[in-house]
Amino acid sequence: MWGMSAAMQTIETSSLDLASDNASGASSKVLEALVAANDGVAPAYGADPFTRRAEERISEVFERDCAVFLLASGTAANALALAALTPPYGAIFCHAHAHVMDDECGAPEFFSAGAKLIGISGDAGKITPAALAASLAAYPAGLVKQVQPAALSLSQASESGTLYRAKDISGLAALAHERAMRVHMDGARFANAVASLGCAPADITWRVGVDVLSLGASKNGAFACEAVVFFDKALAADFAYRRKRGGHTLSKGRFLAAQMLAWLDDHHWLDLARHSNACATRLATALAVISGVRLAWPVEANEVFAILPRTADLALKQAGARYYPWSADRLAIEERPAPDEVFVRLVTSFVTREADIDRFVGIVAANTGN
Amino acid sequence: MWGMSAAMQTIETSSLDLASDNASGASSKVLEALVAANDGVAPAYGADPFTRRAEERISEVFERDCAVFLLASGTAANALALAALTPPYGAIFCHAHAHVMDDECGAPEFFSAGAKLIGISGDAGKITPAALAASLAAYPAGLVKQVQPAALSLSQASESGTLYRAKDISGLAALAHERAMRVHMDGARFANAVASLGCAPADITWRVGVDVLSLGASKNGAFACEAVVFFDKALAADFAYRRKRGGHTLSKGRFLAAQMLAWLDDHHWLDLARHSNACATRLATALAVISGVRLAWPVEANEVFAILPRTADLALKQAGARYYPWSADRLAIEERPAPDEVFVRLVTSFVTREADIDRFVGIVAANTGN
Amino acid sequence: MWGMSAAMQTIETSSLDLASDNASGASSKVLEALVAANDGVAPAYGADPFTRRAEERISEVFERDCAVFLLASGTAANALALAALTPPYGAIFCHAHAHVMDDECGAPEFFSAGAKLIGISGDAGKITPAALAASLAAYPAGLVKQVQPAALSLSQASESGTLYRAKDISGLAALAHERAMRVHMDGARFANAVASLGCAPADITWRVGVDVLSLGASKNGAFACEAVVFFDKALAADFAYRRKRGGHTLSKGRFLAAQMLAWLDDHHWLDLARHSNACATRLATALAVISGVRLAWPVEANEVFAILPRTADLALKQAGARYYPWSADRLAIEERPAPDEVFVRLVTSFVTREADIDRFVGIVAANTGN
Amino acid sequence: MWGMSAAMQTIETSSLDLASDNASGASSKVLEALVAANDGVAPAYGADPFTRRAEERISEVFERDCAVFLLASGTAANALALAALTPPYGAIFCHAHAHVMDDECGAPEFFSAGAKLIGISGDAGKITPAALAASLAAYPAGLVKQVQPAALSLSQASESGTLYRAKDISGLAALAHERAMRVHMDGARFANAVASLGCAPADITWRVGVDVLSLGASKNGAFACEAVVFFDKALAADFAYRRKRGGHTLSKGRFLAAQMLAWLDDHHWLDLARHSNACATRLATALAVISGVRLAWPVEANEVFAILPRTADLALKQAGARYYPWSADRLAIEERPAPDEVFVRLVTSFVTREADIDRFVGIVAANTGN
Repeated sequence: MWGMSAAMQTIETSSLDLASDNASGASSKVLEALVAANDGVAPAYGADPFTRRAEERISEVFERDCAVFLLASGTAANALALAALTPPYGAIFCHAHAHVMDDECGAPEFFSAGAKLIGISGDAGKITPAALAASLAAYPAGLVKQVQPAALSLSQASESGTLYRAKDISGLAALAHERAMRVHMDGARFANAVASLGCAPADITWRVGVDVLSLGASKNGAFACEAVVFFDKALAADFAYRRKRGGHTLSKGRFLAAQMLAWLDDHHWLDLARHSNACATRLATALAVISGVRLAWPVEANEVFAILPRTADLALKQAGARYYPWSADRLAIEERPAPDEVFVRLVTSFVTREADIDRFVGIVAANTGN
Repeated sequence: MWGMSAAMQTIETSSLDLASDNASGASSKVLEALVAANDGVAPAYGADPFTRRAEERISEVFERDCAVFLLASGTAANALALAALTPPYGAIFCHAHAHVMDDECGAPEFFSAGAKLIGISGDAGKITPAALAASLAAYPAGLVKQVQPAALSLSQASESGTLYRAKDISGLAALAHERAMRVHMDGARFANAVASLGCAPADITWRVGVDVLSLGASKNGAFACEAVVFFDKALAADFAYRRKRGGHTLSKGRFLAAQMLAWLDDHHWLDLARHSNACATRLATALAVISGVRLAWPVEANEVFAILPRTADLALKQAGARYYPWSADRLAIEERPAPDEVFVRLVTSFVTREADIDRFVGIVAANTGN
Repeated sequence: MWGMSAAMQTIETSSLDLASDNASGASSKVLEALVAANDGVAPAYGADPFTRRAEERISEVFERDCAVFLLASGTAANALALAALTPPYGAIFCHAHAHVMDDECGAPEFFSAGAKLIGISGDAGKITPAALAASLAAYPAGLVKQVQPAALSLSQASESGTLYRAKDISGLAALAHERAMRVHMDGARFANAVASLGCAPADITWRVGVDVLSLGASKNGAFACEAVVFFDKALAADFAYRRKRGGHTLSKGRFLAAQMLAWLDDHHWLDLARHSNACATRLATALAVISGVRLAWPVEANEVFAILPRTADLALKQAGARYYPWSADRLAIEERPAPDEVFVRLVTSFVTREADIDRFVGIVAANTGN
Repeated sequence: MWGMSAAMQTIETSSLDLASDNASGASSKVLEALVAANDGVAPAYGADPFTRRAEERISEVFERDCAVFLLASGTAANALALAALTPPYGAIFCHAHAHVMDDECGAPEFFSAGAKLIGISGDAGKITPAALAASLAAYPAGLVKQVQPAALSLSQASESGTLYRAKDISGLAALAHERAMRVHMDGARFANAVASLGCAPADITWRVGVDVLSLGASKNGAFACEAVVFFDKALAADFAYRRKRGGHTLSKGRFLAAQMLAWLDDHHWLDLARHSNACATRLATALAVISGVRLAWPVEANEVFAILPRTADLALKQAGARYYPWSADRLAIEERPAPDEVFVRLVTSFVTREADIDRFVGIVAANTGN
């Protein structure tokens, strides 16, 4: 069709790709919506009916009148949302290994004009109220020589594939609000959390104190689509300028909206997430019973963190499996991998097939070195 | 198909839409490429074979080994490119009404951490060597109290729909390079320029002193795709970090690359631009002979700037035409619209139809008030 | 005393130094106050009684309860004050050749995280209401692609040594406030303005719409002391953090306060300014009657801008006089210096002696080449 | 003299002020130099002979041709120095409780346009090579999603009043240089370190790998004077612009230089520091033998960190003593104060008197509650 197809056949199509949920493309429903939206012309920069409808749709899904901004990048969604909450002399409290802390090359610092992220250690990727309280205590109000507490950022699902329950969030949010801070939720995998918890989206966001959500569709069925959702619309007063200035107001905004609409329509987003979650559960359940394999944390969304025998790791690599090693310093010392073990992250997505999970497990089981 | 279609039927499908080349969608070739790229999985964040191939392809098109970075936004392409050239205490010289100056909500200032843009007046959207020299003379080297000349940014095509010739660019670039500045080209409509001038892409870029180009596909057939092209690869040393930090490294990078590949393949980009340009020429030629209509500047790309009788403007609006009024202060005082005239911008694109142009012209001709 | 004195005897002690009011040292009263404040210990970082008293004293002088912040640098005072008024996506309107625009190496852009300064041309260093209105009209409210009007900055005295009258300021401030902008006054030479106009400090500040003032003592009798004075205390809510973060909260804050207290005490600041102004008037009056000499603008403070015969310029230089050439583009074309003329700035200060003025004038008169 | 003296008599003149070395004023030699420099006029903005001489003098003191920049604030010295070493996407490694991390309200983030500070835990305020290596290992070169290691900042003396030996510094600097990072030293109390170690200034700076030093005089005898000293002059290429833009280029620069010259002259700086250090040693030695008192860390400069009985704390407060409580989380769990104890920081300075130390100790000894 366009002449490059031969070159493109080199694309990695391993059925054992557990490296990232970003390795998938778009779901067929999302793709169809994009194709349909391509007919005709529409006003640029988000002044089109698709965008208006997507904004309304998100308010419906969250059972609240929200201020909604679409964009193409999760890093931008997080950093812009945090910049809306945090002055340059502000402090953003987050898990010590949050995506905003570790994996965005300083985007929150950039968009906030130099705010400081305060990392809080916590097991399984989550912050406890006690740890948050202790961290906040080191930043008394009005002490001019220090940055001022401004925002709490929670990741749901966490970077360890675990989930905060509604009451966890409300407890943490209460501590933040006591200090006049605002609460942000990094929802790059928010769909997985909702699908896993079986709750309403509102139940783990504004009803328990979340002020702004980065709602990610990209990892779960979209090409590139995220929404920054302000449950407190007053916080969004200058967001349009910040998004534009950050180069994140796409000229043909209808294509973001078309993705979001298809993704949310008829619970498609939750269907996709349920599949990913089920694959992760299937994987974890099967790995857990293999002698010599350990799981680091509960598997509550679409990520499995496992300590595997090095022999299994080698066999998987030879079979073409893709996944990332994970940093052992995320584990308590007594749980860290032995020299003949590896610590890995395994991520499922809406395109993962059960047969591939079973094949993956089979390779591990056959190569534990025992 | 996805349930929203009724709501979406409100989309503006006026065949007289000359408001913006951003009102169009993607060309069918670009769309097909996107669909094709959606099969299977691929490494995230640009580590996929599509991206590699797109980078190579741009080097081929420009007949030079370039450092290439894909992203989704023209504003981001410009601002990130300028930030790569300009320290925080630097000055960026550009036309007084350049897009980077007027239409990006301060994105260049944001990405450069506060550099200053120095606007240079010039007829028809272009900077002359004399005006650049005069402006530079006000910033002597090493005067600590002033920002330091760092970059020259030229728009090709200009915001007035005019073009710099190769020798224009080389003259301006020489002045910039004498001051150890770097030269950026905002090529949001670079395809229109190449198609109009009938030159090689290299002839109006690195061969005449351009150091980095923002190459825009979004206005001319892509969904959302731009490339920052460094002809001097040394300038790109830290661009990957800046792009990431700006939230402009898309997780599913292959979809940017797929657009760019289809767009460049088999001269598709120039075919699309030739069509836009031809529509603009057809429109300008026909308007020019209507009594009571004046053209502000030569029509060299896909934009027509016209002073129309107010009667014509009203008739067009009633017929559903869309276009923007333009600021009279862009015109010399003696050329500004009279009270019964309006100054407007008319933009054609690859989806503009000749019949619509003719209909537009017909409405003007029939409503000059004479 | 400390062994370096021989080297230091090279210091320029020309009695014809009209280069800058920054060439002077501190007045004897200010010096004595500094010496007195050096006894004993005091709490650091401005928590000392001197600082408290200086803050109160400024409120008394301005007949209003103000929020006051002392610092050592006029550039910092301006940039921090503007940053308190202007978001990163904001626009600051000022004269095209204001100090904040031309002479601070981009400090306002730095402290505001990338706001844009919009220069407004105007004769004799001043902005007219018509020019401000025209400039504002190009920035309609809520147009997302543009920076948003946030602040108006007026220099009193202006960079051309001229003054705004109370009614000038109220007219300009009214235009700014209509757009919900805030008004800043760069008062590096505010003392000269008050002394010249014979008004109360309040009459040309908050009574006519000024929201925040950079009050400069450094050029007029202090070592290094400026105050940012917020007439609307709500605007000062986060200033303490911004000042600290900018490194402008001096550890031994009492020494700033001691300078300010002595400077304000018993009208000392106005006595110093009256002397400077009188010297400038004496200089201007004498120059004006010399054939071949022209004054560019009215002399209303302590600066004289004169077009001198080149012969006079040479004779002055030979006599050891110091002053800066000034840019001819500040003048209307018909008033620019001829090839045998030079355009210069002559600045008087509290240490200027009448005899030196007379000697300076004598050299000019004897060397007009006529 | 200037009418405010009555109000000023409220100044705190407790002879038991151990709150901060910033509570002192200037030494008599520094004061005399300032007074002497006040005669006559001098070129502004550091173009005066005092400044030139001070720059030379620092090069002499450090036995190397350095690039030297004077300013009035230690926070600014640190932040500007770090900004010269660190791009916006860079990481600065420092002790978890370094001044740049905890006490500058985010100044390094501000001046660097959003770099990230990585805190490294370490006993007694110091970083070990093992801890630095472990921290660096988490930031592999070229991993785009992370900030990039750019600078190591060491505090000498440390925030715990301890010192790095030359070989400590060379070991840490070697690790940094291996990663192409640069080494900064926060020398707010550098004089105390040199005086205590009895070494040449060069021995603990450039000879062991320090690239740039913030040399502080303010805490040890100056009014307000710091120098940023680049041992690698190439790193200083754009410092003049950054300092100006930060508002830290004082207009009457000679007064900074006069302080620095007097401070360095005839080993005055080391004499002052030796006195402070001796007072701290006297205090620590006497406290250490009091039953019920513990010292947290070795006393190597002019700070004593002690765990006192609460009874002693109360008695000291009643006697008018001033000092700050210190955070118990700086101590290992087993060393933290019991409920009837307090953890405090006691800082001596060049104005501390031995008799006051003895009186302070006497109060403690008499009030241990035993």
